[in-house]
Amino acid sequence: MVNVALVGFGYWGPNLARNFSNNPECKLSAICELSPARSKLAKQQHPSCEIVSDFNELLRKKDIDAVLIATPVASHFELAKAALNSGKDILVEKPFTMTVAEAEELIDIADKKSRIIAVDHTFLFTGAVRKIKEVVSSGEMGELLYIDSVRINLGLFQSDVNVIWDLAPHDISIINHLIEASPVAVTAVGTSHTVNGLENIAYVHIEYEGQLIAHLHINWISPAKIRRMLIGGTNKMIVYDDMEFSEKVKIYDKGIVVRNAKDVNSIHKVIVDYRTGDMIAPKLDNREALSAEVEHFISCVRDRTKPLADGNAGLKVVRMLEATQRSIENNGQRVKII
Amino acid sequence: MVNVALVGFGYWGPNLARNFSNNPECKLSAICELSPARSKLAKQQHPSCEIVSDFNELLRKKDIDAVLIATPVASHFELAKAALNSGKDILVEKPFTMTVAEAEELIDIADKKSRIIAVDHTFLFTGAVRKIKEVVSSGEMGELLYIDSVRINLGLFQSDVNVIWDLAPHDISIINHLIEASPVAVTAVGTSHTVNGLENIAYVHIEYEGQLIAHLHINWISPAKIRRMLIGGTNKMIVYDDMEFSEKVKIYDKGIVVRNAKDVNSIHKVIVDYRTGDMIAPKLDNREALSAEVEHFISCVRDRTKPLADGNAGLKVVRMLEATQRSIENNGQRVKII
Amino acid sequence: MVNVALVGFGYWGPNLARNFSNNPECKLSAICELSPARSKLAKQQHPSCEIVSDFNELLRKKDIDAVLIATPVASHFELAKAALNSGKDILVEKPFTMTVAEAEELIDIADKKSRIIAVDHTFLFTGAVRKIKEVVSSGEMGELLYIDSVRINLGLFQSDVNVIWDLAPHDISIINHLIEASPVAVTAVGTSHTVNGLENIAYVHIEYEGQLIAHLHINWISPAKIRRMLIGGTNKMIVYDDMEFSEKVKIYDKGIVVRNAKDVNSIHKVIVDYRTGDMIAPKLDNREALSAEVEHFISCVRDRTKPLADGNAGLKVVRMLEATQRSIENNGQRVKII
Amino acid sequence: MVNVALVGFGYWGPNLARNFSNNPECKLSAICELSPARSKLAKQQHPSCEIVSDFNELLRKKDIDAVLIATPVASHFELAKAALNSGKDILVEKPFTMTVAEAEELIDIADKKSRIIAVDHTFLFTGAVRKIKEVVSSGEMGELLYIDSVRINLGLFQSDVNVIWDLAPHDISIINHLIEASPVAVTAVGTSHTVNGLENIAYVHIEYEGQLIAHLHINWISPAKIRRMLIGGTNKMIVYDDMEFSEKVKIYDKGIVVRNAKDVNSIHKVIVDYRTGDMIAPKLDNREALSAEVEHFISCVRDRTKPLADGNAGLKVVRMLEATQRSIENNGQRVKII
Repeated sequence: MVNVALVGFGYWGPNLARNFSNNPECKLSAICELSPARSKLAKQQHPSCEIVSDFNELLRKKDIDAVLIATPVASHFELAKAALNSGKDILVEKPFTMTVAEAEELIDIADKKSRIIAVDHTFLFTGAVRKIKEVVSSGEMGELLYIDSVRINLGLFQSDVNVIWDLAPHDISIINHLIEASPVAVTAVGTSHTVNGLENIAYVHIEYEGQLIAHLHINWISPAKIRRMLIGGTNKMIVYDDMEFSEKVKIYDKGIVVRNAKDVNSIHKVIVDYRTGDMIAPKLDNREALSAEVEHFISCVRDRTKPLADGNAGLKVVRMLEATQRSIENNGQRVKII
Repeated sequence: MVNVALVGFGYWGPNLARNFSNNPECKLSAICELSPARSKLAKQQHPSCEIVSDFNELLRKKDIDAVLIATPVASHFELAKAALNSGKDILVEKPFTMTVAEAEELIDIADKKSRIIAVDHTFLFTGAVRKIKEVVSSGEMGELLYIDSVRINLGLFQSDVNVIWDLAPHDISIINHLIEASPVAVTAVGTSHTVNGLENIAYVHIEYEGQLIAHLHINWISPAKIRRMLIGGTNKMIVYDDMEFSEKVKIYDKGIVVRNAKDVNSIHKVIVDYRTGDMIAPKLDNREALSAEVEHFISCVRDRTKPLADGNAGLKVVRMLEATQRSIENNGQRVKII
Repeated sequence: MVNVALVGFGYWGPNLARNFSNNPECKLSAICELSPARSKLAKQQHPSCEIVSDFNELLRKKDIDAVLIATPVASHFELAKAALNSGKDILVEKPFTMTVAEAEELIDIADKKSRIIAVDHTFLFTGAVRKIKEVVSSGEMGELLYIDSVRINLGLFQSDVNVIWDLAPHDISIINHLIEASPVAVTAVGTSHTVNGLENIAYVHIEYEGQLIAHLHINWISPAKIRRMLIGGTNKMIVYDDMEFSEKVKIYDKGIVVRNAKDVNSIHKVIVDYRTGDMIAPKLDNREALSAEVEHFISCVRDRTKPLADGNAGLKVVRMLEATQRSIENNGQRVKII
Repeated sequence: MVNVALVGFGYWGPNLARNFSNNPECKLSAICELSPARSKLAKQQHPSCEIVSDFNELLRKKDIDAVLIATPVASHFELAKAALNSGKDILVEKPFTMTVAEAEELIDIADKKSRIIAVDHTFLFTGAVRKIKEVVSSGEMGELLYIDSVRINLGLFQSDVNVIWDLAPHDISIINHLIEASPVAVTAVGTSHTVNGLENIAYVHIEYEGQLIAHLHINWISPAKIRRMLIGGTNKMIVYDDMEFSEKVKIYDKGIVVRNAKDVNSIHKVIVDYRTGDMIAPKLDNREALSAEVEHFISCVRDRTKPLADGNAGLKVVRMLEATQRSIENNGQRVKII
C-alpha cells in the first residue's frame, strides 16, 4: 500500500485526489491547500483525509511515500525540492518547472537521493496515444516525415502563463514520446492581443536531424475547438482527432515512394509514387488516462522503477518551452536545442 | 461581343475555354497549343474554334481583344509581354509571374498601353469568399486578429514548382483580398522529402502592422484533405471549410473584449471577457466561380474598368511568394516586405 | 426547504441523489435501497443521509415532502400509489407505469389527495429541447409537417423491457412536448433477434390529424451511435443532433410553399416552391438538464404548481407505448389512440 | 463493335449518351428525341450522331444492336416491347415498368426472342456497393440482421410519380442485390403535403423469412441531405454513407452473440455478448459507376450473357414498388409479396 499526499486542490488537484483515492493499492492520507474554501471542498470530498495548510507538515509525516504537486508552475521547484530532500517520491503537474536549470537541479537531487520523479503528462496514458506509439514503434509507418498538431479553441486566457506554457506541454510531451530522436532547433512565432503581452496564439516549428519536422498551432481564440494531430510516414499516415467520439485514431495506408534517378544530371527528375489503400480506426482502450497513469506511478513507487514520464521527460518539455519562448521573443529567430 | 484567344490547353486551359465559350457576351475564336494530342482534344471540344501552334499568329489577329494565358508559370512573362505589346488585354493564370520584377514590368507596359491585366485568382469569385469579404468589410467582425489557413492533402508532387508556388497563391490571394493593410514581414519554413529539394510541406507566417497575423499550412503529403480557413475578429469569428458540402462558411458570434486596467502597476492585470452566441451559416451563391470570373473579365474588357484581381493583385501575391521562398532558403529568417 | 427521499440507488438513482443534494433549496434525507452493495455505495456518497431497506419506513417519516422513485418500471405503480396515499409528492422515473390503467389510477389518487406527480422526462430540460420548443411555439416554422427521430447504437440489451420501452419514452416525451395535438393512430413494426422475443429494433409511425406525422427508429444493434431528430415545417426546418459537440440544434431557413391550382381539373397541377436560406445554430444553455429539472420539481412542490412533465404527460407516453406494443404484436396493424 | 441507339435526351439520357460515346467498344449511332430544343442539344453534343424524332425509324435500322430507353416510366413498356419485337436488346431506365404485369410481359418476349434486358440500376456498379456486396457474400458479416436505408433531402417534387417511385428503386435494387432471399411482406406508410396526393415522405418496412428486415426512409422535404445505409450482421456491421467524401464504406468489427439458455423455464434468460473491434474503411474503386455499367452492358450484348441487373432484377423492384403503393393506400396494411 502506497501512501500519498497531495499539495494543491485547485483545478487539477481534485482529479488526482479522486483517482488516487479510487486506486486500491494506494491511500491518499493528506491534502495541503491554502485557500479555506478549497480546503472545505477537499474535506467534503475526502472526509477520511487530513487537510492541512502547512506544506512542511506533510513532509514531516514519515509514513507518506509520495507527494503529488498540483500547484501553479511557479511553485513547482521549491515544493518538489523540499519533498525530494525529505525523501519523498514526487508526481509533478505539467509543465515540470519554469526553467531548464530548475528541472536539472531536481533530477540531480532525485538521483542522489534515489527518489522517483514523475511528471504528469497525462496524454501519454490515453488509449489513443498508446495505440499510436505502438504503431509508430512497430515500424509499419516507414520513415517518419512530419507531425502537425493543432490544439485550439476559445479558451480561458491564463493570467500567469501564455498559450505556449498552457497548451504546448501536451503536444510536446506526445511528440517527444513518439519521436525518439532529439530536436535540433525551434522556430516560433506568437502574438498577444492583450496588454500584458502574454501570447494567445503561437506557431512552433521543430526541426530534427534529417527531414523530419514537427509543427504546433496553439490558440486560445479559435471559434472552433480542434485537437488534431497528423503524423506522416513514408508507408502510413495517422490522423489523431481527439474531438472524434469513437474513432479518434485513423491509420491510413497512404504513403509516398520517392524514386531518385541515379545520374547527376537528373537533379530535377524525381519520381514520386503514391500508395493509397484502406483506412483502419483501431479499437482503443477507453480507460480514463489518469487512472492508468496513477496505477503506473504507484507501481513505480512500490517497485522502484523509472516512470514512463520521468524527470528527463519533464526536462525535455521545459527545454522546448524555453527555446520556443526565446524564439518568439526574438521575432521567430531559429533557436538551437543543445 | 468580346473576342478572346487562349494559349495553353493543358490542365486549366479547358476550363477557361469552356467558360468563355458558354458566355453569350464573348467569342472564343482561337486556341494556341503546342502538343498535337492536346490540340486534337481542343479541336474536338471546340470545333468552331481555330487551333494554332504559333503564338504570334494569335497576336497578329487584329480582331482578338484579349488573350488568356494558361501556360506554365515560367512562360507567363514572355507571353504576357508580347500580348500587351500587341495591344491585347490579358487574363493570366496564377501565379502571375516568376518574379516581382517581371510583374512590375508587365504592369508598367499595361499602364503605358492602357491595357487590362487580370490575374486568375478564381477563389475570389466563389460564393464563399464573396460572402466572407462582405462580412469582413461590413465591420461586424470588429478588429481582425488573425487568419489561419490550412490547405493540405495527398496531392500531386509538381516537378517544376514547390508546394508554395503551387498552393499558396490561393490562400494569399484570398487573404490579400480580405485584409486591406499590406503585410510587413514573412517568416517561413518548409521541408522537402525528395532529392530535387522542392518543398512539399511549408508553413508561412505573415505579419501586419499592429497585432494582426496570418499563417498558412500547405502540404502535399497529408492523409486527410483539409481546406479550412479561420478568421478571428474581436466581435465575430469565421470558419471557412471548403470541404463542407453545403455549409462552407460559418460565422460565430464569438469574440473577446480585452479590458486593460489603467494604472501602470497593473501590467499583468488584463481582463478578457468572452462572447459566445449563435452561429450562422449564410446561404451562399452556388454559381461556378470561374463563370462569374469570366463574366467580370468580359465586362472589364468591354467597359475598360479595373479587374477585381488586376496586375497589382497578382504582383502582391508574387511578392509574398518571393519573400516566402527567401525566408525558407534562409532557415526561417524573417523577411521584410517592402 | 423541501425534504425528499429516494427509492432505488441503481443506474439512475445516484444521479437524482447527486442533483437533489447539490440543490440548496432541498434536503435529501433518506435513501431506500434493497441491495447491500448499493446501500453501502449510497452511504459512501451521501454520508449524512439515512439509508433504509424498508420503503414503509420512508413513508412513515412525516417530514418527507416528496419521494423520488428510481426503481424498475414494474414496481413504479405500487411504490407511487403508496407514496401518494401517504401524502407525499412524487417524481417517477420514465416510463411512468407499465399500463395506461396504472397511470390513470395514480393520476386519480393524486388529484383526490392534491399531490403532485412529476415524471422524469429529463430531455425536456435540456438546452436543446427548450430552444426547439421556443422556436416551434413561436410559429416561425410555419405548419409542422413531420418529425423523424433516430435513436440508435450498439446498446445494452435490457432483459426486462424491449427497445421500445427502453428508448422510445425519450423521443415520445419530446414529440408530445413539441406537438400540442394528440396523436390519432400508431403503426409499428419491430424485430427481436433473441430467443426471449424482446424487440431490439423497432420503427414507430405516429399519425396526427391533418398531414402531420412522426416516425421513430430505435435500435440496440446499430454500428453507429445516432441521436438525431428532423423537424420539418413549411417555413423552417430543424435538425437536432445530440451527438454534435456544440451545435446540437440547427435551424434551416428552408421550406416549401405549395400553391394549389384552383380549378377542379388540375388535381395533378401542384406547384411547389422552395425556400432555402441561412442556417442558424443558436447558442444553447449548457446547464445539466437534470439540475434544471430538479430545481423545477422543487419549486412545484414548494409552490404547489403543475410540473412541466406531470402525470398526464407520463400517461400520454405510456398510452403511446401500449399502442405501439399492440401494433407490433399484430404485425404492424394500425392502432387508434383514443 | 456494338451499335446502340438512345431514346430520350432529357435528364438522364445525356449521361448515357456520353458514356456510350466514350466507350471504345461501342458506337452510339442514333438518338430519338421529340423536343426540338433537346434534339438541338443532342446534335451539339454528339455531332456525328443521327438525331430522329420517330422511334420507329430507330427500330427499322438493321445495324442497331441495342436500344437505350431513357424516357418517362409511363412509356417504358411500349417502347421496350417494340424494341424487343424488332430484335433489339434493351437497357431500360429505372424503374423498369409501371406494373408487374408489364415487366413480366417484357421478360416473356425477351425470352422468346432471345433478347437481353438490362435495367439501369446504376448504384450496383459503384465502387461502394461492389465492395459491400463482396463483404456480404464472403460471409464475414455472419447472419444478416437488418438493413436500414435513409435517402432524404430537399428534393425536386416530381409531378408524375411520388417519392417512392422516384427514390426507392435505388434502395430496393441495392437491397435486392445484397440479400439473396426474397421478401415476404411489405408494410408502408407515406404522406403527401400537396393537393395532388403524391407522397413526399414514405417509410417502407420489408420482411424476409427468419428475422431479417429492411427499412427505408425516403423524403423530399428534409433540411439535411442524407444518403446512409446501415447493414447489421451478427459478426460485422457496415455503415455506407454516400455523402462522405472518401470513406463511404465503414466496416465495423461489431456484432452480437446471443447465447440462449437451454432449459424451458429460462425463456427470459437471454445472454447477449457484444463484440466491438476495429473499423476498416476499405479503399474503393472510384471509377464512374455508369461507365462500368456501360462496359458491362456492352459485353453482355456482345457475348450474349445475362446482365447483373436483368429483367428479373427490374421486375423484383417493380413488385416491391407495387406492394409498397398498395400498403400505403391501405393505411399501412401488411402486403404479402408472392
